[in-house]
Amino acid sequence: MSKPQPARGMRDILPTEAAIRDWMQGRILETYRRFGYTRIETPALENIQLLTGDDGGENAKLVFKVMKRGEKLDLGKPGLNEDDQVDLGLRFDLTVPLVRFFTSNRAQLPRAFKAIQIGPVWRAERPQKGRYRQFTQCDIDIIGLEEGLAEAELLVASAEALIAVGFEGFTIRLNDRRILTAIAASSGVEESRYGSVFITLDKLDKIGLDGVKKELAQQGFAEAQIDRLAAMLAGVDGISVEDFAKRLGTSLEAKVPGLIREILDAVGADAGNRYKVAFDPTLVRGMGYYTGPVFEIAQPGYDFSIAGGGRYDRMVGKLSGEEAPACGFSIGFERVVTILMDKAFAPPTEAKLTALLVPEGTELRRALSASRALRSEGLAPSLFPLEKKLGRQLDGLQASGFTHYAVLEGEGRPTIKEMKSPSR
Amino acid sequence: MSKPQPARGMRDILPTEAAIRDWMQGRILETYRRFGYTRIETPALENIQLLTGDDGGENAKLVFKVMKRGEKLDLGKPGLNEDDQVDLGLRFDLTVPLVRFFTSNRAQLPRAFKAIQIGPVWRAERPQKGRYRQFTQCDIDIIGLEEGLAEAELLVASAEALIAVGFEGFTIRLNDRRILTAIAASSGVEESRYGSVFITLDKLDKIGLDGVKKELAQQGFAEAQIDRLAAMLAGVDGISVEDFAKRLGTSLEAKVPGLIREILDAVGADAGNRYKVAFDPTLVRGMGYYTGPVFEIAQPGYDFSIAGGGRYDRMVGKLSGEEAPACGFSIGFERVVTILMDKAFAPPTEAKLTALLVPEGTELRRALSASRALRSEGLAPSLFPLEKKLGRQLDGLQASGFTHYAVLEGEGRPTIKEMKSPSR
Repeated sequence: MSKPQPARGMRDILPTEAAIRDWMQGRILETYRRFGYTRIETPALENIQLLTGDDGGENAKLVFKVMKRGEKLDLGKPGLNEDDQVDLGLRFDLTVPLVRFFTSNRAQLPRAFKAIQIGPVWRAERPQKGRYRQFTQCDIDIIGLEEGLAEAELLVASAEALIAVGFEGFTIRLNDRRILTAIAASSGVEESRYGSVFITLDKLDKIGLDGVKKELAQQGFAEAQIDRLAAMLAGVDGISVEDFAKRLGTSLEAKVPGLIREILDAVGADAGNRYKVAFDPTLVRGMGYYTGPVFEIAQPGYDFSIAGGGRYDRMVGKLSGEEAPACGFSIGFERVVTILMDKAFAPPTEAKLTALLVPEGTELRRALSASRALRSEGLAPSLFPLEKKLGRQLDGLQASGFTHYAVLEGEGRPTIKEMKSPSR
Repeated sequence: MSKPQPARGMRDILPTEAAIRDWMQGRILETYRRFGYTRIETPALENIQLLTGDDGGENAKLVFKVMKRGEKLDLGKPGLNEDDQVDLGLRFDLTVPLVRFFTSNRAQLPRAFKAIQIGPVWRAERPQKGRYRQFTQCDIDIIGLEEGLAEAELLVASAEALIAVGFEGFTIRLNDRRILTAIAASSGVEESRYGSVFITLDKLDKIGLDGVKKELAQQGFAEAQIDRLAAMLAGVDGISVEDFAKRLGTSLEAKVPGLIREILDAVGADAGNRYKVAFDPTLVRGMGYYTGPVFEIAQPGYDFSIAGGGRYDRMVGKLSGEEAPACGFSIGFERVVTILMDKAFAPPTEAKLTALLVPEGTELRRALSASRALRSEGLAPSLFPLEKKLGRQLDGLQASGFTHYAVLEGEGRPTIKEMKSPSR
């Protein structure tokens, strides 16, 4: 009989990792709650129409679709298609469900609503190393506040959350969707092709300016357009938002540089020397729904971002017909877990895990009362029958995290012994 | 435009409830960890074959099925059936996935494995008041330990977890699958019909002995069988396990009454006067996979149980070919939430939720530093632009849980004011 395994692209979470995840979730929730955010939850399944709309972008193609129930489907019927059979899907992110939540529950929510969400999402991506089809997202969002104060608070709260799980020395990169749009517009690119420009621009730090020019040429952009883009992007490393705005001229809304400057200065002052915040005109956040400031956090030593977000002022109106400004920041929960696991991080535990070994024939009552007595001393005792080969039993217990043990012999309090070092 | 709603039978969790759920989960996890249990997680989706096997019982019929991806299905093909299209399903409980987890990861787990699981499950039941298609289960299980010590610890740990979330005065009812089997056997019922007898027996406290007799007669049991069953069940209220065993004679394995007695005495001694534990020969736990002791907790004043479980020694062997004894206890997480919500329970909070109202034109830097200063005093300040109608703004903030506020005027620390009583 072959042993059943997790489904393709799915994985189990074993005790060591589960302890890290619980600790992280606790620290992050605690931090965000100290900024006045409240947690909400939406169901894993949403109506399929919600998930396959525009705002999902590429992710909408990766939805796990759930079959209709109830009515018997005539599966052999000619002309039958998927839509006849599917009514639900598993959520692929927490943003689309949040907007649905806000529109469904608007009457019961404050006009300016600050939400925390932590939960699993599902994407039917091709399974690959370190990438799974179920993973946890961790988002905060503010619905109902215009740009400025909201972004500043989101950035500081998320930076504090990352510090609470042990990070430091990271950099928040800040840009604005309107700056990206102005780059494309002032280069003479047609609006329908802005998306392609942004995707290539996003690779600037990896492929360099020459790489960007080459890729744009391959995509058939005119030489004049490419030259203008290249001129605009030359020497932008460390450029100030004011200097970069000069390159864009009137293509950029006049209020944008001042807004970015104010956020940079305010967050920078709050950061002190714990982390940095910097303007980066080449920062592109993938989702097409962003409308204003966008931001991302990278940790030195890792070539992926550990958090990202931005303002999406049109999504609520599009879904419900009633406009509401919105912005959000998402911590890459799985990436942070990976980094902590790589470091062999162990969350601080309150109580010593103690195996209380019970010889055969001991009264259950005696075992329970010894366990109670040790708990009242602050230990975490766990009952196991004493096995004949104590050494082998201790090895097994130690491998599963027990640091102490006691054999329940005679009367009175059992003697607690520390496990030998695992080098045996 | 009509507002999108949660899918049929699904629901959103709003901040007040989410806070209760987080608090409960924290308290329960903390309690179980003090007994040496460790948390694990399995994916929401499992291979469909695992979920539609025998051990799911009725629940296997309620699986949400996920469509295959990748290969293009010719949906109009004659003779096509559901199995051709479906490869995954959403888990309907945490027990079947736990057994799958144990067999998949056995090499990395201790021989006696004590697991905590808290997570959502999905069942496509007919939606009705208070019953949803996604709900949270909260289980502890011990795989690898024989009966006795394991049950005693499970019962005490779960009772302590319920006490930790504010319950007291409840009763643990204890029975054994072998006692149920002996009742049916000694009444001359054929083995294939034991299940029907148990389902009817389970209703004894609701429909009385006459109701049970009537229902059995309707199901076509012979009068002699019904009379013998009725004689066995007459006057069982408060009967001791020893006295009841006498009625069963040799139909019952000899060791069972002694085992039940020892668990009753040990748990009873640990309970003190905080809760009760009692033998109840009419307790039937629905799942067919139980093999030994079964148990359930009811809270006075509610006509449903708030926790239940039992021993299932054959499930691991059936799935993997390698036997391992197992037992588990599940707290009815949603039922406990419902009871706490009914009581308008509010979890103790550490920090006062304080709206920090920022007049237009205030520097972002000033807003962030005021927020930081209040956090360092132990408050939970949240930034909002000051609105023109302060009274209306405060009403909204108070409705969403803020108890304090301050307007950020002038220099220095803003004055924190308490919100007026909500009677305004």
